[in-house]
Amino acid sequence: MDKSTLSKRILQKRSYLCVGLDTDLSLIPEFLRKEKDPIFEFNRLIIDATAAYCVAYKPNIAFYEALGAKGWESLQKTIEYIPQSHFTIADAKRGDIGNTSGLYAKTFFDPTSSGLDFDAVTVAPYMGYDSVSPFLKYTNKWTILLALTSNPGSADFQQLDVQGKRVYEKVLETSLTWEGSDRLMYVVGATQARELENIRRIVPEHFLLVPGVGAQGGSLKEVSRLGMNQWVGLLVNSSRSIIYAGKGKDFAELAGKEAQKIQQEMSRCLDQYYNY
Amino acid sequence: MDKSTLSKRILQKRSYLCVGLDTDLSLIPEFLRKEKDPIFEFNRLIIDATAAYCVAYKPNIAFYEALGAKGWESLQKTIEYIPQSHFTIADAKRGDIGNTSGLYAKTFFDPTSSGLDFDAVTVAPYMGYDSVSPFLKYTNKWTILLALTSNPGSADFQQLDVQGKRVYEKVLETSLTWEGSDRLMYVVGATQARELENIRRIVPEHFLLVPGVGAQGGSLKEVSRLGMNQWVGLLVNSSRSIIYAGKGKDFAELAGKEAQKIQQEMSRCLDQYYNY
Repeated sequence: MDKSTLSKRILQKRSYLCVGLDTDLSLIPEFLRKEKDPIFEFNRLIIDATAAYCVAYKPNIAFYEALGAKGWESLQKTIEYIPQSHFTIADAKRGDIGNTSGLYAKTFFDPTSSGLDFDAVTVAPYMGYDSVSPFLKYTNKWTILLALTSNPGSADFQQLDVQGKRVYEKVLETSLTWEGSDRLMYVVGATQARELENIRRIVPEHFLLVPGVGAQGGSLKEVSRLGMNQWVGLLVNSSRSIIYAGKGKDFAELAGKEAQKIQQEMSRCLDQYYNY
Repeated sequence: MDKSTLSKRILQKRSYLCVGLDTDLSLIPEFLRKEKDPIFEFNRLIIDATAAYCVAYKPNIAFYEALGAKGWESLQKTIEYIPQSHFTIADAKRGDIGNTSGLYAKTFFDPTSSGLDFDAVTVAPYMGYDSVSPFLKYTNKWTILLALTSNPGSADFQQLDVQGKRVYEKVLETSLTWEGSDRLMYVVGATQARELENIRRIVPEHFLLVPGVGAQGGSLKEVSRLGMNQWVGLLVNSSRSIIYAGKGKDFAELAGKEAQKIQQEMSRCLDQYYNY
């Protein structure tokens, strides 16, 4: 999906919500556990209930990988089930030396390899250019680079002072010089809203994937006010507060209601902060 | 496996060789491709041929993941096949926010979860303390933190100057303050040998996992001279130069010979540089 299509979808649906499919066997409703593939069954019902209110889905790969081969099957079925209209993100935070990163790119981008066909994958920048470039070679795909994450540990290295700039600022600046950098997006935690103005100075044109609204305490209003650009430029992720909104037979209905509530808040934010 | 056991095995076998099982369907001998599980079959024969000359095996997870659920099955069979006497490393370079890193730790350390039971996993430090600590909670396991990698892109961020120190030095120093830091090892590329003296000043007691000897051009002698400590303290990985030493029916025999050649060189390095 290209940038202007993604932007149009957001403005049509009045939503820049990404639903995080962090599906944990121990947290899904009891009655689903007797299904043959409870993880996929849960995701299927969540997708049916939320698709109207979001533009993207983001399975965090850890949740699937922890179940081994079976988890990968659930992931594959989930990705095939997500409507073509929705942007799909493999939250994998991968990164390795060049030829190996190429295999990770293949994993998530080439359906003839692993069976998965995501629009985007999250990538860790620590190993530098040649660990990211194999992902950028897929000209119809997106690479979402970790910049400033939402967790407390983001202070340990991302915020270190490199001659007047922070490490995450160097990551942003340096990545802009890479071939295919127009197909980059960046992860910026919602808990880092006060850094968003600064981040927008460095990457005014790019989309930001913003986790941490909801369970982690970030503010949607703040993020929207400081982060929007002419493409809207934001995908705000919410996982637990949507998918675990209910525990009973009506869990999907409650997830849909929660997604709708966020979508309505996003619609108001678009009215208020999107002036292009 | 604890540190003194690993150290003893190294001194008994006169080898600190780790064989990288970077098994690529397009590079294994033609005749294996008709097997039901060619990846496992290849690994099984490589393990049989090399086990006498190495102390560790390191499958790079990208190679298995790229094949989806089937790849995870090959990985599981491989790990079960590796003799108990050998140290096993999941080269996964994972890292996510706390609860999610916990799932990655479960994936590689808890056989009741994914079916995998590795001794160690490689982890990327970019997201800081709470992305690494879930791995360190496994008191009988090892976390191998990326410090200074062997690829050209390691210069992009790892070597940035943070008030007189490089980012990778800050990673080393900071990680020493973390709970369970005695169960850390560090990835230091063999191509970075001139940094090893400096690294040993910061982490004199820890094991280093050193990829990049062979195909990537690092020197075993240099690495051994500068990197050894009283535990030997080195696991030197070689992947392609061993496992793809041959292309025909005798590929495993040739892999064994290549592993033996490295082991003999290591034996000489132990004579020359291990003085404890």
